[in-house]
Amino acid sequence: MSSVLLTGIGELVTNDPTHDGTPLGLLTDAAVVVEDHRVAWVGRRHEAPATDDARDLGGRAVLPGFVDSHSHLLFAGDRAGEFAARMAGESYTGGGIRTTVAATRAATDEQLEANLARHLAEMRRQGTTTVEVKSGYGLSVHDEARALAIARRWTSETTFLGAHVVPPEHADDPAAYVELVTGPMLEAAAPHARWIDAFCERGAFDADQARAVLEAGAAAGLRGRLHANQLGPGPGVRLACELGLTAVDHCTFLADADVEALVGSGTVATLLPGVEFSTRSPYPDARGLLDAGVTVALASDCNPGSCYTSSLPLCVALAVREMRMTPAEAVWAATAGGARALDRDDVGVLAPGRRAHLTVLDAPSHLHLAYRPGVPLVAEVIA
Amino acid sequence: MSSVLLTGIGELVTNDPTHDGTPLGLLTDAAVVVEDHRVAWVGRRHEAPATDDARDLGGRAVLPGFVDSHSHLLFAGDRAGEFAARMAGESYTGGGIRTTVAATRAATDEQLEANLARHLAEMRRQGTTTVEVKSGYGLSVHDEARALAIARRWTSETTFLGAHVVPPEHADDPAAYVELVTGPMLEAAAPHARWIDAFCERGAFDADQARAVLEAGAAAGLRGRLHANQLGPGPGVRLACELGLTAVDHCTFLADADVEALVGSGTVATLLPGVEFSTRSPYPDARGLLDAGVTVALASDCNPGSCYTSSLPLCVALAVREMRMTPAEAVWAATAGGARALDRDDVGVLAPGRRAHLTVLDAPSHLHLAYRPGVPLVAEVIA
Ligand SMILES: [Zn+2]
Ligand SMILES: [Zn+2]
Repeated sequence: MSSVLLTGIGELVTNDPTHDGTPLGLLTDAAVVVEDHRVAWVGRRHEAPATDDARDLGGRAVLPGFVDSHSHLLFAGDRAGEFAARMAGESYTGGGIRTTVAATRAATDEQLEANLARHLAEMRRQGTTTVEVKSGYGLSVHDEARALAIARRWTSETTFLGAHVVPPEHADDPAAYVELVTGPMLEAAAPHARWIDAFCERGAFDADQARAVLEAGAAAGLRGRLHANQLGPGPGVRLACELGLTAVDHCTFLADADVEALVGSGTVATLLPGVEFSTRSPYPDARGLLDAGVTVALASDCNPGSCYTSSLPLCVALAVREMRMTPAEAVWAATAGGARALDRDDVGVLAPGRRAHLTVLDAPSHLHLAYRPGVPLVAEVIA
Repeated sequence: MSSVLLTGIGELVTNDPTHDGTPLGLLTDAAVVVEDHRVAWVGRRHEAPATDDARDLGGRAVLPGFVDSHSHLLFAGDRAGEFAARMAGESYTGGGIRTTVAATRAATDEQLEANLARHLAEMRRQGTTTVEVKSGYGLSVHDEARALAIARRWTSETTFLGAHVVPPEHADDPAAYVELVTGPMLEAAAPHARWIDAFCERGAFDADQARAVLEAGAAAGLRGRLHANQLGPGPGVRLACELGLTAVDHCTFLADADVEALVGSGTVATLLPGVEFSTRSPYPDARGLLDAGVTVALASDCNPGSCYTSSLPLCVALAVREMRMTPAEAVWAATAGGARALDRDDVGVLAPGRRAHLTVLDAPSHLHLAYRPGVPLVAEVIA
């Protein structure tokens, strides 16, 4: 297997603290050897081993490909009109999800897969190399299973989110819908999913319902993650910690007890600032979480309703501007943090043996992701 | 001269209200005929005239190329470290401009031109087809004139901004610096500039100094524009209106009298929300201006200190999210508004006789510029 030396890396973000004693593990004037799609060596350019081939990256900054641990890309249609109405003053209640459910059910497999592929390509152009994809716009046995079967062809990080909202046809009997989700729907979905998730929020599923979904999923061999505390305070974050879930996402409205639970549990708090940007909502208290020692990930939550950005560079910029994360914290959270939130040790870090997923910036430093908001800085993605 | 029919335009923003009675002049299922780099015809696809050639744009949205009426692209170096420090809590005082002045003076002509060309290419990839470029990091007779001579090779919209800050070597005698700006520096700069500008702000130039600069510029045949009311209240906006300047830029801190002056004068208020994003400052009251009937433009202010974004799509998204402009108002302000701010009637509008500067979005509607923040949506630029 031939080896390639990537050299002329002005700044390399490794997320391996052995290099500089910081979480970002920065190296300047660095090089990386790639062999068989894996990182074989990382270090200073002048210490690089001999390789079959070499490429000079011209002083650019390189970081691990972004790991987007939260997206909803199995859908059809868009909700641009709802967005414009919300920006004109209507508040986001989540009710518009039903619009997407109807469009998604009406779409063919080919349409759903083409839409997914288009969004994944768009993410990749922006430096994202690992993407979690949820179901949750099918909400029937057939439509949830087909969504996950399609997603599985594109990513190993598939999440069954039958418990997204109660669909219209079950509006009168949410308990029966939870039984459907935890029974036949789970049975049909599980072969295509790695994760199970629920939207634990007033208007969606309460803590008992979310617990039932997560426990049924665990019994079917799925790992758990949770949407919680997005629209208001609630029991979701504590439930996630109690159940030892890998990650709990949104975390916008947290009480001290929620932060304490996160500290004690090791559950990753995934912040989704694109949602707050796109719904004109207050941002989560990232500083409080970080200062308490909670592991924080950043993800896009890309979906046609509450946040239709696929841009982790924008999420990094928002994390710095709006949540007072440092650029280093934000870049770590969108790479290594995302990997933690997916319990993946092969991505998010550039070290020997890890996957050679590299995002090359048309910039000399990771700082530029926050310093140059909105600018398409990703020059190349190697994955 | 051969004519080309651009067809399959899902949504066309013309900024010609005759089409739909709104400022955006929207047409659906539209077509445009381009001949000799000009728009020859605009209308519904099925009414299009015969042409030599045709291209189908696949249902995409098309708008006039963005007109960025405020940028500072003649510089060397960057200030990423200053940005990170500011995000960590230091406030923006404008003092860092001197760092860029030193780097710019030390750069060769070739370095300055390459940096300018790189940023203009970056802007074009984001849909911007007309760019105003200011001097203001030379601040000596030689360095201001060479900056403008370089800029003039790339754009007709060149602005002499000798009155950006008082450079260190004149710190003891600002009055002597104003005499230099209005005398030998203006004489050297004027042949390369269309506009003259000043930074009328506490810590930069007061109203009398700004007036002296603008009047000297007018006497030398330059049109006036002004930086004003960015960091606090002040006399700049009223001065701009009194002098009948084409545009006054920033307008972040306005009193009622400033808004009244704008309404009465016809001076365009150019808002630069990337600055507020990048300095964590309060945003201008765009709604107050629009509701009072002021013409509002959006521009990037791209510069290495207070705002290093070159992205008008991001400015549109910020205008909607943070300044409560509608998507239509924001798109108009970044296209037709920018053209008004540069007193240009050949760009910013797609109508027969105007320049064929078209930005094609990988999206079905202009709404997506705000609905999909941070996503590089520009599929193609025709100019
Ligand atoms: Zn979500
Ligand atoms: Zn400026």
